[in-house]
Amino acid sequence: MAPSAAIETEAVTDTSTITVLNPLAAPLKINELYGRRKTPLKSQWGVAAVSNSELFKLRPQEGKPKAKNWDYRLSQEALSRKGNSLKQAAKFLATPGLISLGGGIPTSEYFPFDSLMLKVPRVGHFSEAEAHASGMILESGKHDLLEDKSILDIATAFNYGQGTGTAQLLRWVTEHTELVHDPPYQDWACTLTVGSTSALDMAFRMFTEKGDYVLSEEYTFATAVETAAPMGVKVAGVKMDAQGLLPDSMDEILTHWDPVSRGARKPTVLYTVPTGQNPTGATQGHARRRAIYAVAQKHDLYILEDEPYYFLQMDPYTGPDAPPAPTPTTHEEFLKNLVPSLLSMDVDGRVLRMDSFSKVISPGSRVGWITASEPIVRKYYMHADVSTQGPSGMSQLLLFKLLDEGWGHPGYLDWLMHIRAEYTKRRDVILAACETHLPKEVVSWVPPMAGMFHWLQVKYEKHPRYPAKSITELEDEIFMRNVGNGVLMMKGSWFYASSEERHDTLFFRATFAAAPFDRIQEAIRRFGKTLRESFGLEMLEDGEDGVVSNGVGGKENKPLGHHVTNGHTGKAV
Amino acid sequence: MAPSAAIETEAVTDTSTITVLNPLAAPLKINELYGRRKTPLKSQWGVAAVSNSELFKLRPQEGKPKAKNWDYRLSQEALSRKGNSLKQAAKFLATPGLISLGGGIPTSEYFPFDSLMLKVPRVGHFSEAEAHASGMILESGKHDLLEDKSILDIATAFNYGQGTGTAQLLRWVTEHTELVHDPPYQDWACTLTVGSTSALDMAFRMFTEKGDYVLSEEYTFATAVETAAPMGVKVAGVKMDAQGLLPDSMDEILTHWDPVSRGARKPTVLYTVPTGQNPTGATQGHARRRAIYAVAQKHDLYILEDEPYYFLQMDPYTGPDAPPAPTPTTHEEFLKNLVPSLLSMDVDGRVLRMDSFSKVISPGSRVGWITASEPIVRKYYMHADVSTQGPSGMSQLLLFKLLDEGWGHPGYLDWLMHIRAEYTKRRDVILAACETHLPKEVVSWVPPMAGMFHWLQVKYEKHPRYPAKSITELEDEIFMRNVGNGVLMMKGSWFYASSEERHDTLFFRATFAAAPFDRIQEAIRRFGKTLRESFGLEMLEDGEDGVVSNGVGGKENKPLGHHVTNGHTGKAV
Repeated sequence: MAPSAAIETEAVTDTSTITVLNPLAAPLKINELYGRRKTPLKSQWGVAAVSNSELFKLRPQEGKPKAKNWDYRLSQEALSRKGNSLKQAAKFLATPGLISLGGGIPTSEYFPFDSLMLKVPRVGHFSEAEAHASGMILESGKHDLLEDKSILDIATAFNYGQGTGTAQLLRWVTEHTELVHDPPYQDWACTLTVGSTSALDMAFRMFTEKGDYVLSEEYTFATAVETAAPMGVKVAGVKMDAQGLLPDSMDEILTHWDPVSRGARKPTVLYTVPTGQNPTGATQGHARRRAIYAVAQKHDLYILEDEPYYFLQMDPYTGPDAPPAPTPTTHEEFLKNLVPSLLSMDVDGRVLRMDSFSKVISPGSRVGWITASEPIVRKYYMHADVSTQGPSGMSQLLLFKLLDEGWGHPGYLDWLMHIRAEYTKRRDVILAACETHLPKEVVSWVPPMAGMFHWLQVKYEKHPRYPAKSITELEDEIFMRNVGNGVLMMKGSWFYASSEERHDTLFFRATFAAAPFDRIQEAIRRFGKTLRESFGLEMLEDGEDGVVSNGVGGKENKPLGHHVTNGHTGKAV
Repeated sequence: MAPSAAIETEAVTDTSTITVLNPLAAPLKINELYGRRKTPLKSQWGVAAVSNSELFKLRPQEGKPKAKNWDYRLSQEALSRKGNSLKQAAKFLATPGLISLGGGIPTSEYFPFDSLMLKVPRVGHFSEAEAHASGMILESGKHDLLEDKSILDIATAFNYGQGTGTAQLLRWVTEHTELVHDPPYQDWACTLTVGSTSALDMAFRMFTEKGDYVLSEEYTFATAVETAAPMGVKVAGVKMDAQGLLPDSMDEILTHWDPVSRGARKPTVLYTVPTGQNPTGATQGHARRRAIYAVAQKHDLYILEDEPYYFLQMDPYTGPDAPPAPTPTTHEEFLKNLVPSLLSMDVDGRVLRMDSFSKVISPGSRVGWITASEPIVRKYYMHADVSTQGPSGMSQLLLFKLLDEGWGHPGYLDWLMHIRAEYTKRRDVILAACETHLPKEVVSWVPPMAGMFHWLQVKYEKHPRYPAKSITELEDEIFMRNVGNGVLMMKGSWFYASSEERHDTLFFRATFAAAPFDRIQEAIRRFGKTLRESFGLEMLEDGEDGVVSNGVGGKENKPLGHHVTNGHTGKAV
């Protein structure tokens, strides 16, 4: 498209510094990021302007290898996907003096919004109280772009867009991805999504056929299984330990895959949540990720890396009485402390990484993005063009105002460091409560290093009624007794990758993401009571594990959390 | 779910007036709408609260028949779709005193938004200038719901939601649907979508299998064909006239369908755009719709009614010199003047109607809704729960503020009447320009009665080089000559439902939705020049069809519209 070419030409004026540097020598420094931004033509930011990540990469990528061609892994559906026929007309739009009666894009005159103001926290003053008392105001007018006040406005964001999302926000996620992951191949690209749940739905359609198996952790995100099942796609579970997926187990499954007895070809896709996995809370360490990637290479697997909790990595847990571990204080330290992503070691371009704003900004934005090799990303947004059409422009405008114009990249890293500290506190509260209130002879856990979930293993073999009662029956008995005691925790069996396989473990999942600290403590105390009752153990003294006065059976029926929560379900958990 | 039951109980207090009225006797009056709203529990509006249209219908539906069961029309994918397993936990959330460590829903404490302000036009003062000078301010705080300031706030809308959308906006679209369409069966329901493009993608997945044909207008929305094709679903075109799809042609296709020669079973789905059809601009009249519905009943077709342009119905065209037709001045007149929808005559529940805010509020909202029988709607939102997750909460908050708290239903009807008048003006401008500038001996048209498109038929048989040059070659020659003269209009052949079928017509599509009036006039003048050149006709005098000074070849390369448009494509056209 003409605008792209124009931008690339302009960028040439800035090559003097770029060519001197070896892009592969050192990670991109955050303080050099803005100096490397190209200055595009104003038309680049217009209504439904075409864009791609190449326009926004900060450093030249030529020293890197190109991604493998993955066409042979694509479904018939993806292979037969062609571009929008009407886009043939787009190339004429740059004709000087042309009047377009082409696209059915309404005039913004008929958008009933004049302006919008947002109050958001200032960088470094992130608490709700500070945001309320001294937040900064971000404004968006209808025609800011025409009036040179901003590169995104209501007239543009509220009109039709591209499947890729707006150039404005695509630039931001491309820069962020280069800063954090710097994929080690040349032709990586990003495109916006309407969230990772949709991205996974679209990725399954792209990489699987009816009857296929995909691999995943033995316990996995229930929605992933339920997304795949109606397509006729099943999930084969890979054994896990405290660091999540075991590469040897995956290797074994693949090496000994028998298409006849399985009734399906050898899997070609791995779906994994490497950080703060749902439901187990497990985080793959650096070496574990390298080993998983090596097995993927050995069996030529394509990897779907789902990383909503990536930035909810925490400081190490030091126990209830020890002082907390030191927390990163600089952006460099923060970034260096993150476990490297599979994307960051992806020399083949075999990873489609899904990022999301849901856990770090707002789930209601329904904005995320994927990163993969350019041909895969192109298939993705071609699909988006005829289905989701890309994320809400209203959401994109709010995120652009906050992230790009408001905080900038350094401010966003500060925010992520803030969130990291907050989730560390929450994790520490639930762990301390577990140590105080739970009978360790029948329940055990590993301190989570990321995410929102604490995964509690119950030693069913010590239950007085086992094996007369099955694991499933015991799980249900404990679940119901827990509800009776006033706590809702999720059954582990709801997260089986495959219910066909034999399972001999018993788990409950508790989230520490939402409830206030005292409620988390009280809930864990109640869970201790549940376990002691079920296993016939001696009860702790009153007030230690007893139900407190405002608990179950009391007259109170008020919302317990910080907001009205009645009627909510286990959405997107 | 408990909250629903609670609301139904409360609603009983209000039945005295309801039972007296016969709901089928007369259309719902807009002034009685608010008096019929039930008073729900506050928890109904909470984070990811479960809701459904039944809670929000304004009149009892018992006098109506129930919808047919459509399970036998569902795809394997839709039939195998089961509810989210984690929702089994939801029913316990109403337990008094319960602490939930269940759902992984983040606390709103970590949403970096304190408040939001919107400036929108006041009812009756809808122009951009008035909105800017004297618009009204709508505010949303983070915890308005807790503080009893509003039933929707940032803490709720920016968190996870349901596939149905928020209860708050679902109420609004349910009421609007009852007011406008009052479906003649009992168990109709609405659910929000991320726009009709996505809704169509999901509907095809729900009602077709690979290898199927669906029926549609001979010329159809190109994206619909491109959505279906990668699924292995083809479109069979039904002949059209000035009122769009011809029921007799559809009957004939179905009656004589030969599965062997077609290589596909007899179609079971009709996709149609009844109002202001894209690309032809055709609008089915009332009798035409009844006839189409009758053929659908005869062959037991399921109907996908795609209606983005429904409210862009216009006053009749009276010609360039006659005074304009009288425009509706009351809400009742406005509603009565709308051609009845297929949904409004759907006694079987065989219609899935797609509505959209794109053409009447903002395409960038990515919010629309469908209306169909409850079991179909349930399949739809169960799918949404594991894919799109429903529309952006940010968009939903903005729309709720504007439509429900800002304008209300009467104000929204005023807005629709305003838009109707605006599009009528635009339509009249392009028609007058055509009458002035086009050589009627080689081009003809029917004044559109709705939508954004003007469809111009070129009499190729009068072309001096026909049949030496094929219709396709002539179409391309005229298209390119038009671009050379500085106008972009779409080729009719880009809209073939099926390119396998023989076509002996030559059309161009022009939109009058976007360009300023003088640009529309100038573009049509240039098109006249194009046709005269191509057909070797005598040129009009200078200034009549000549290219004006700021046209093609001039030095100007400024955006021509009201906003920056360079680089945009034929999106969603």
